[in-house]
Amino acid sequence: MDASSQILDAVTFDDDGLVPAITQDAMTDKVLMMAYMTEDTLRETLDTGQMVYWSRSRQERWVKGATSGHAQAVEEVRVDCDGDTLLFKVDQTGGACHTGYKSCFYRRADDDRLVADREKVFDPDAVYDDAS
Amino acid sequence: MDASSQILDAVTFDDDGLVPAITQDAMTDKVLMMAYMTEDTLRETLDTGQMVYWSRSRQERWVKGATSGHAQAVEEVRVDCDGDTLLFKVDQTGGACHTGYKSCFYRRADDDRLVADREKVFDPDAVYDDAS
Repeated sequence: MDASSQILDAVTFDDDGLVPAITQDAMTDKVLMMAYMTEDTLRETLDTGQMVYWSRSRQERWVKGATSGHAQAVEEVRVDCDGDTLLFKVDQTGGACHTGYKSCFYRRADDDRLVADREKVFDPDAVYDDAS
Repeated sequence: MDASSQILDAVTFDDDGLVPAITQDAMTDKVLMMAYMTEDTLRETLDTGQMVYWSRSRQERWVKGATSGHAQAVEEVRVDCDGDTLLFKVDQTGGACHTGYKSCFYRRADDDRLVADREKVFDPDAVYDDAS
């Protein structure tokens, strides 16, 4: 029995075999992103200590930072009351968002408008090639 | 055109007409819960400043705190890069979780075990009647 099996037992996956995972910066507590995990990528995350998601758009395993270098090292793992949402605190290298921001939630509602009120931490053109 | 329409235009709802909404405590930045909104309950949330979700289990509009009194007043609204996840900072009355904890994420993975490492802020038996 691997070390993560009791955690896995507490998690409920949806009809597509996915569970949403919220990622929070361990230093600032800012919410960085939300993505999805399969049972396999959750197990891999728990075993390796590096965030591994499931890309719904590409329908493939998604090791965060594999292309960009902007990996997420797991600092803390939490499971919600009914086991259908996960919360990870991570040490984020670079930025979590493909747009160059630290967090995907860089836009704040200001009355009826959305305003980008954060600074970019990297240049996406320098990180991702044309094919991405 | 209502004040929230440009925010609503930026949001993508899934095949069930839902968008996940992460709720974070505005004072402590702790993640309190994640639940889902329809376009209607998102509009109602933006218009009233009180969190209104869609209960997937009951398939009905869910005004947070209607039964428990543990309402969530909206302090800040954020939309992620691709518009398919929302982040709300709220002023939480009482606790967000029906189990009596402030946050639904009261269990932390400690090696292979899940440990409840938070204190309850209310007694659920005193808040919810037998029918809930």
